[in-house]
Amino acid sequence: MSERVEELRSRLAKVVDVRNAARLLHWDQQTMMPVSGGTARADSLATLERLSHELFVSAETGRLLEAAEQELNGTPPDSDDACLVRVVWQRWEKARRVPSELAAELAHAGSVGQEAWVEARSQSDFAAFRPHLERNLELGRRYVDCFDGFDCAYDALLDDYEPGMKTAEVAALFAELKAELVPLIAAIAQRPDAVDAACLHGEFAIDRQRRLVAKVVEQMGFRRTGWRMDDAVHPFATSMGSADVRITTRWDETYFASGLYGAMHECGHGLYEAGIDLALQRTPIGSAESLGLHESQSRMWENMVGRGKSFSRYLAPLVSETFPESMAGLDPDTLYRAVNRVQPSFIRVEADEATYGLHIVLRFELEQELIEGRLAVADLPEAWNTRFKDYLGLDVPDDAHGVLQDVHWAAGLLGYFPTYALGNMIAGQLWDQIAVDLPDRDDRIAAGDLAPLREWLRVNVHRHGSKFPTQELLTRVAGGPIEVQPFVVYLKAKLGDVYGL
Amino acid sequence: MSERVEELRSRLAKVVDVRNAARLLHWDQQTMMPVSGGTARADSLATLERLSHELFVSAETGRLLEAAEQELNGTPPDSDDACLVRVVWQRWEKARRVPSELAAELAHAGSVGQEAWVEARSQSDFAAFRPHLERNLELGRRYVDCFDGFDCAYDALLDDYEPGMKTAEVAALFAELKAELVPLIAAIAQRPDAVDAACLHGEFAIDRQRRLVAKVVEQMGFRRTGWRMDDAVHPFATSMGSADVRITTRWDETYFASGLYGAMHECGHGLYEAGIDLALQRTPIGSAESLGLHESQSRMWENMVGRGKSFSRYLAPLVSETFPESMAGLDPDTLYRAVNRVQPSFIRVEADEATYGLHIVLRFELEQELIEGRLAVADLPEAWNTRFKDYLGLDVPDDAHGVLQDVHWAAGLLGYFPTYALGNMIAGQLWDQIAVDLPDRDDRIAAGDLAPLREWLRVNVHRHGSKFPTQELLTRVAGGPIEVQPFVVYLKAKLGDVYGL
Repeated sequence: MSERVEELRSRLAKVVDVRNAARLLHWDQQTMMPVSGGTARADSLATLERLSHELFVSAETGRLLEAAEQELNGTPPDSDDACLVRVVWQRWEKARRVPSELAAELAHAGSVGQEAWVEARSQSDFAAFRPHLERNLELGRRYVDCFDGFDCAYDALLDDYEPGMKTAEVAALFAELKAELVPLIAAIAQRPDAVDAACLHGEFAIDRQRRLVAKVVEQMGFRRTGWRMDDAVHPFATSMGSADVRITTRWDETYFASGLYGAMHECGHGLYEAGIDLALQRTPIGSAESLGLHESQSRMWENMVGRGKSFSRYLAPLVSETFPESMAGLDPDTLYRAVNRVQPSFIRVEADEATYGLHIVLRFELEQELIEGRLAVADLPEAWNTRFKDYLGLDVPDDAHGVLQDVHWAAGLLGYFPTYALGNMIAGQLWDQIAVDLPDRDDRIAAGDLAPLREWLRVNVHRHGSKFPTQELLTRVAGGPIEVQPFVVYLKAKLGDVYGL
Repeated sequence: MSERVEELRSRLAKVVDVRNAARLLHWDQQTMMPVSGGTARADSLATLERLSHELFVSAETGRLLEAAEQELNGTPPDSDDACLVRVVWQRWEKARRVPSELAAELAHAGSVGQEAWVEARSQSDFAAFRPHLERNLELGRRYVDCFDGFDCAYDALLDDYEPGMKTAEVAALFAELKAELVPLIAAIAQRPDAVDAACLHGEFAIDRQRRLVAKVVEQMGFRRTGWRMDDAVHPFATSMGSADVRITTRWDETYFASGLYGAMHECGHGLYEAGIDLALQRTPIGSAESLGLHESQSRMWENMVGRGKSFSRYLAPLVSETFPESMAGLDPDTLYRAVNRVQPSFIRVEADEATYGLHIVLRFELEQELIEGRLAVADLPEAWNTRFKDYLGLDVPDDAHGVLQDVHWAAGLLGYFPTYALGNMIAGQLWDQIAVDLPDRDDRIAAGDLAPLREWLRVNVHRHGSKFPTQELLTRVAGGPIEVQPFVVYLKAKLGDVYGL
């Protein structure tokens, strides 16, 4: 019956196999690889990208798509096979405009750039990093030039991470977000002594932090049989299919919130990867639809769960038990207030939920200017620092705490940053719907029982992989496309509570 | 001038890139991968093998080889380029007889078989492993059937690990070896109390063992910038080019010799990979020529160096320092005698140097019978146990200590085992030559100065990669092809000393 679909699936499975291999090479580069292995690694990643790209964009794939579509005529449009053909056709149309040589060059430069970034960041040496960013931007522009249907250069990049989303739509959402955040942050700044975060700082032996975090992510759904957790310079999550999920974190011996909430964030990503239907494995729709959706999961687990009042009731005794000398009898409310302290700071991944959005707006603006050539790489640190002062009121002390803090541009991931803030918005919408569908949500969380929430997310979001566009999925699940207000209402309620606004 | 050679190198570089990726996937499978990742891993390995095989065996590679050969007409035959074309041409002729589909199936079955083996070995459950070995043998026979120029089935397999070597040659060498080993072992058996190995047994905390081993391999040439050492069920070494070398070991808390000499063995392999000329990187001749040569390096470092009298003078104080409670004042001669105790035992990788050869002869015989269909897999455990009793005088207690102990057959590596014993022979020949070229060899080793030995091996063996056939290299370096006597003379001298024969 479905012979043509099987032929298509068989070809696409090989593309996925190679991509899974490339994912492992990336994972290894960031967690295990000895430093001198970078040259051979970049070569291998470039060749894997070339081969999977050639396999994917070939005319043969197009013929198989056409034959499969004919065979599927009449199949329900939300069936796995109909979604597969529709989604792959769109991606094929986009990918075939890109020469395989350019795809390989992008992969090579991203791998080399990442190695250079690790070194440059550790030395806070932007000059050493500059040629790599210039190379990534040059390749990014050549990539953009492959297309003619986009409204602007940035649209072509954004579309890879947030399919179908336009720069103008993001800009409108971000303008609304910023208009809400700025007065909220200003109001909080009037009450500098309302929150004491001293309990988060001290001496926290890393092996004990590991035990604490292992316990928390296990409650979330981390399973030793199918997951790993390792250390990385820049935490990330990846997977080679749903049965091999890998998360990473980094540790601060003087501040346990860094490792803990970072791990919850990455575990949120991991649950998405682990929750995709088995029937979609080894197909191109067996991965998350968009990074906005992906970040909605990680940000929800990190902030709405992890930094929530309910979870703090579960977490505080665990923290006390882990660090009995300094944290005995930690009050859940003290912990809850401490981890929600709003304070402009330099590092995005450790920013509070209110200022976080401004970190993203800054990056979104700068990378548009970079890709359009309105801002030269040589002028980037100054532009970063000026805008940082403007948005967050702080003087950036060095590039390691400024423009060099994130791996994304080094790895060639231009157009990625907006998805973090979109993720917050999506998380706000999902969180509201979960409150309706799981009336005892908060009580369960307070008891450390995270299974109902995880299962809701799996059934409503994860299992679909990339069968549905983000906006369609969100409309099915939460009643409408991406909007700002649910997140803002959530945030104002929480920070109003914490700060007595 | 060398445009055609450059085109050839560029194509072959992509094949090497994919093979390096596959090596990383193998490494990860054995060291890091969560157990449920096996299915996707086997798929990825199969597809990488398919793609690199297709790339390599294509008619285009043949045309590039022909053009390069014409261009090189008159180039010295031992130049890099002339060797590249000659060696690749031979491999191309062999590989193109194998369908890419079969190459992919072999890779898939090897990866699946390896996962099944880990589980079967831990349960000593041969029945669970049996279908995997049957599958590997079926594929092995289909592989053999691709060729018509070999004298026997086993020749086609052996040739992949020991290019150009014939089964009959190995059999003749092994007959001579066995004829020497059996009376030697018998003579030693008459003196059961001559050696006391009690000092090797006790309580040795694994973190301290790690420190001891880290120190030893660092002396050998392990460098953190380009190497890693991890734990594995079955220790192995691999590399993704000379700048990313990975070795593994396993630990026994009651017997420190296992981790230590295992690590020295794998580090010996690693030094080979690390020592190959930069000019050969990213070419198919940028790896070891044969496994016999490879094992000559690992076995030399493990036994001739590690278990040698000179090195024991360096090692004994280190052991004392590492385990001061139980090993204070360890006498170098006591250590030397203990680690050279000859005693028939079940596990090959922990066998003494005399009985080791019999472990190999047994496997060499059984795998010939298996591939030729003279022995059914169902009858293998019994055949193993009967022959083990015959050769080593012991009753195998369970399959985990018998037929299930090694990963090779599980991973589809049929024809590999003889190379260990060939490695011992080659090591014997090289060791004699080193004594001539480095008259202070033993004094340096006793002082822990392993650099002259490492450098001799790099210059004479490692740097050539697979430019020269094993027998030719050995003739250049040590004056003749593989022979048994230098190893036997070495062994009789050492064991004669230890046992007062």
